[in-house]
Amino acid sequence: MSSAPISRFPVPRLEDLPEDVRARILAVQEKSGFVPNVFLALAHRPEEFRAFFAYHDALMDKQGGLTKAEREMIVVATSGANNCQYCVVAHGAILRVRAKDPRLADQVAINYRKADITPRQKAMLGFAMQVALEAAAVGERDFEALRAHGFSEDDIWDIAAIAAFFALSNRMANVTSMRPNDEFYLMGRVAREK
Amino acid sequence: MSSAPISRFPVPRLEDLPEDVRARILAVQEKSGFVPNVFLALAHRPEEFRAFFAYHDALMDKQGGLTKAEREMIVVATSGANNCQYCVVAHGAILRVRAKDPRLADQVAINYRKADITPRQKAMLGFAMQVALEAAAVGERDFEALRAHGFSEDDIWDIAAIAAFFALSNRMANVTSMRPNDEFYLMGRVAREK
Amino acid sequence: MSSAPISRFPVPRLEDLPEDVRARILAVQEKSGFVPNVFLALAHRPEEFRAFFAYHDALMDKQGGLTKAEREMIVVATSGANNCQYCVVAHGAILRVRAKDPRLADQVAINYRKADITPRQKAMLGFAMQVALEAAAVGERDFEALRAHGFSEDDIWDIAAIAAFFALSNRMANVTSMRPNDEFYLMGRVAREK
Amino acid sequence: MSSAPISRFPVPRLEDLPEDVRARILAVQEKSGFVPNVFLALAHRPEEFRAFFAYHDALMDKQGGLTKAEREMIVVATSGANNCQYCVVAHGAILRVRAKDPRLADQVAINYRKADITPRQKAMLGFAMQVALEAAAVGERDFEALRAHGFSEDDIWDIAAIAAFFALSNRMANVTSMRPNDEFYLMGRVAREK
Amino acid sequence: MSSAPISRFPVPRLEDLPEDVRARILAVQEKSGFVPNVFLALAHRPEEFRAFFAYHDALMDKQGGLTKAEREMIVVATSGANNCQYCVVAHGAILRVRAKDPRLADQVAINYRKADITPRQKAMLGFAMQVALEAAAVGERDFEALRAHGFSEDDIWDIAAIAAFFALSNRMANVTSMRPNDEFYLMGRVAREK
Amino acid sequence: MSSAPISRFPVPRLEDLPEDVRARILAVQEKSGFVPNVFLALAHRPEEFRAFFAYHDALMDKQGGLTKAEREMIVVATSGANNCQYCVVAHGAILRVRAKDPRLADQVAINYRKADITPRQKAMLGFAMQVALEAAAVGERDFEALRAHGFSEDDIWDIAAIAAFFALSNRMANVTSMRPNDEFYLMGRVAREK
Repeated sequence: MSSAPISRFPVPRLEDLPEDVRARILAVQEKSGFVPNVFLALAHRPEEFRAFFAYHDALMDKQGGLTKAEREMIVVATSGANNCQYCVVAHGAILRVRAKDPRLADQVAINYRKADITPRQKAMLGFAMQVALEAAAVGERDFEALRAHGFSEDDIWDIAAIAAFFALSNRMANVTSMRPNDEFYLMGRVAREK
Repeated sequence: MSSAPISRFPVPRLEDLPEDVRARILAVQEKSGFVPNVFLALAHRPEEFRAFFAYHDALMDKQGGLTKAEREMIVVATSGANNCQYCVVAHGAILRVRAKDPRLADQVAINYRKADITPRQKAMLGFAMQVALEAAAVGERDFEALRAHGFSEDDIWDIAAIAAFFALSNRMANVTSMRPNDEFYLMGRVAREK
Repeated sequence: MSSAPISRFPVPRLEDLPEDVRARILAVQEKSGFVPNVFLALAHRPEEFRAFFAYHDALMDKQGGLTKAEREMIVVATSGANNCQYCVVAHGAILRVRAKDPRLADQVAINYRKADITPRQKAMLGFAMQVALEAAAVGERDFEALRAHGFSEDDIWDIAAIAAFFALSNRMANVTSMRPNDEFYLMGRVAREK
Repeated sequence: MSSAPISRFPVPRLEDLPEDVRARILAVQEKSGFVPNVFLALAHRPEEFRAFFAYHDALMDKQGGLTKAEREMIVVATSGANNCQYCVVAHGAILRVRAKDPRLADQVAINYRKADITPRQKAMLGFAMQVALEAAAVGERDFEALRAHGFSEDDIWDIAAIAAFFALSNRMANVTSMRPNDEFYLMGRVAREK
Repeated sequence: MSSAPISRFPVPRLEDLPEDVRARILAVQEKSGFVPNVFLALAHRPEEFRAFFAYHDALMDKQGGLTKAEREMIVVATSGANNCQYCVVAHGAILRVRAKDPRLADQVAINYRKADITPRQKAMLGFAMQVALEAAAVGERDFEALRAHGFSEDDIWDIAAIAAFFALSNRMANVTSMRPNDEFYLMGRVAREK
Repeated sequence: MSSAPISRFPVPRLEDLPEDVRARILAVQEKSGFVPNVFLALAHRPEEFRAFFAYHDALMDKQGGLTKAEREMIVVATSGANNCQYCVVAHGAILRVRAKDPRLADQVAINYRKADITPRQKAMLGFAMQVALEAAAVGERDFEALRAHGFSEDDIWDIAAIAAFFALSNRMANVTSMRPNDEFYLMGRVAREK
């Protein structure tokens, strides 16, 4: 199963990649212990690769009113709505790690309304789902509902931008039949402590 | 978290249940090591409980052209489409155990078209999804497509009946806010051997 | 026309059925003057037959805050939304009889919002439609709206369970191309004045 | 019940109507024995009334490759899809009368795929439903499928135009809460045997 | 490109048309400087032609609480929702002329919520879209919202009737592949300064 | 009207922007004669700005099997489906310029099936729409249909990536209420020659 292709498009060999792309991939491997397949699948197009990860990092690694776990919740909920297997499995793993909660990702992927999260987080995900599924109808009333939960204008942009970025990401993963690494499935599910 | 309610409706105490319902629940507990919450949540209505599990067992425990793992695939795929957290988490666990595959359930729940299954199984799930989502449009052409994959008339009834039964089950779980047991999340994910 | 098949799956002969299934069917025939085709079509699978009718009776024949006519309204409205010909025709007949109203079923099947029913009944059917069509989004706000109309928690379970049970039933009827008996079409339409 | 309003907009008195509108209504009454409410409800706007019924008659009373019963089938099927109670009840009655079939209208209103009609008629209704629900996607492939069933170009225009006209009619009936006359419900259901 | 067919159905020659239909067409040509293709395409069926334009004029040329530009906004918004190229292009041109605004039509066709119009006009278009897309769910709450913006009952009928009429028109234009005249595209976009 | 806000979020002043962002904006202004509002609206977040335009340029300015006009067709068609006013107006202008066709953009925005384009281009847009609206269902059959029209694997990636990128872009424009510049509306509509 591990020998199944990770993309229906050609996947470049590391040694054939531009230096900066290869360096980025090696850095991820160093940190995570493996190379998430999204890096290899998108490296087929180095320019798009650079823009994709620059965008990703600008949204997911920044400081602000949303915690890193909350950013991952947005990814997992909207990727579930878009039926994106790669993003739910990979970001589900990251969400488990960041939230230090082995069950949250499975809950959020299927129905965030029933997840063990706060009302504020449910409002955040409700808005993210609207951006993912019917952005044309977003209006001031929706912004007001978020402000009532204490979200700032900057937080609202973040929620929208993460949902919008993964609208892109989910579509690329589905079209390329991007395959989640086996490593993701178990990550963050078992406490390592002691 | 474990103290969160398992249903938004009253959950009976074991000792208050009719003898046969209690016996059924104790038998499950004996076998599984815990009582799946669906038993407790539905025991609020003993008559419906009896019919529900009789129906469930008639479809899921029977012999036939579909393996037990394939039956669970139908449950997981259609429950994903219905955004039913309880059914995806609980039957995802059972699917992992029955298929002896730690990753299959997460794949099938989000997008069965990208799962590590055979073309025959994809045809099966395609039909199950149609029953779940637009049964009024099912026609002879759909039956022919299944027969081309070797499914018998009895198999086709089974696929349809499982999708139909979980149409019921998903709706009850969503309306009752049925909570998946913590035990399900990790079940079948880690090889027990050695 | 009466010779058209009542199911696209095999229909057993009465004499080949298990004793309890045959007895149930004969009892219905005794009472109604004919055997509704759902009994014959589902008797193809005696175990499922038993569970199906046990479930049905538990929901439709019980006492409680909903009248029998109201229970049938739920069936007719949600079966209309699911485009289930058998259930609309058969339960439409029962609704006419139970409500002693020759027009109500046709109204409810097409657009319950325009039917000659009370605001409370419209709220009931609005909730039933939500369970039928988007149960994953049901939440406490919906329960509160029902309570404002005087529905108890038990009534709410009943509404949801009937909508959920016919989600199953509609799918089986559509997949089997279950044919409504000719008798249903006229039943309850003409006053049997004394 | 008969005293319920027939429109949520004002309904003119016959004596206040322009001569031609009143004459048209009296002619219908003469022929049918009652005035279908659509005449009274739309008479609120005499100019629109004239255009509406001129259009209706041009499509429904003409000769051509479609029988009058087939034209009514199109009305009933698409009005069912649009959840238009007035049109399903009133044209269901006309369909029963024209097809001399007491059951056809109820079948077509809920799921034409399961109705006692020919494959050619199912193709006709399939196209009519596409015009009703997603006309923007109609293309030459759809026309070819109709021609394969022997429909002429003129027949195809008729099918489309009837579905399009009742797209208008269904919306007006729903917005005005147009009430079907009690007379329609039973019409054509009982053989008027000699 | 100008030689592309204006309808996939036969288009009559002016000289073959009934006198009144030809007169109507010549009058339009006199006034507009060209014959909008809808006149030629629908002249294939003179009776329907007469009813269509009588209906159109009754709704679009009348006096009342809605300005002529507002009536055209309803056409453009709902025709956009129905993906009707002819109606968006032709009535977009008329909207630009009537509103004396070169940009409004493009805004309204794609997303009226973001158009340079008043809150009252947004409420009007919100209701028109509901009539176009889900008329079965229109209810008193929607009427109240319109009245809060100062719309009279007659205005509400007008909004609904225009949306309903173009439900018909959009379907005919899509099925006939009606081609917008080249003249419409630029009309009203450039100020004809004195 | 020109004084209406171009975004509901803060819009930075040019002099407050990082040097590279300002330089990029000034270059666009130099070339186009004005600054498209997307540059100013997204400059609120310089890091996202850089990634956004790097991604945009990688997809829209590259050589390959798709012409620049075809790339813009993809943008306009999918942005129409997403009801994104900014993208339809701005990229509609670019499409008119690149295709040297004053009418194409309005056609493609509303219903590409009726546009004056080749069957190959219709297949391209059909696939792009599928990526935009239901990417989870894309499969090998869709790729084969594109190859039958002569599209290479690289072309297919391009089509998908452009549709995916504008899934992001459309959502950001709708959430920010990004306003199209007045200049776009007329651009490319009037032949400049002579």
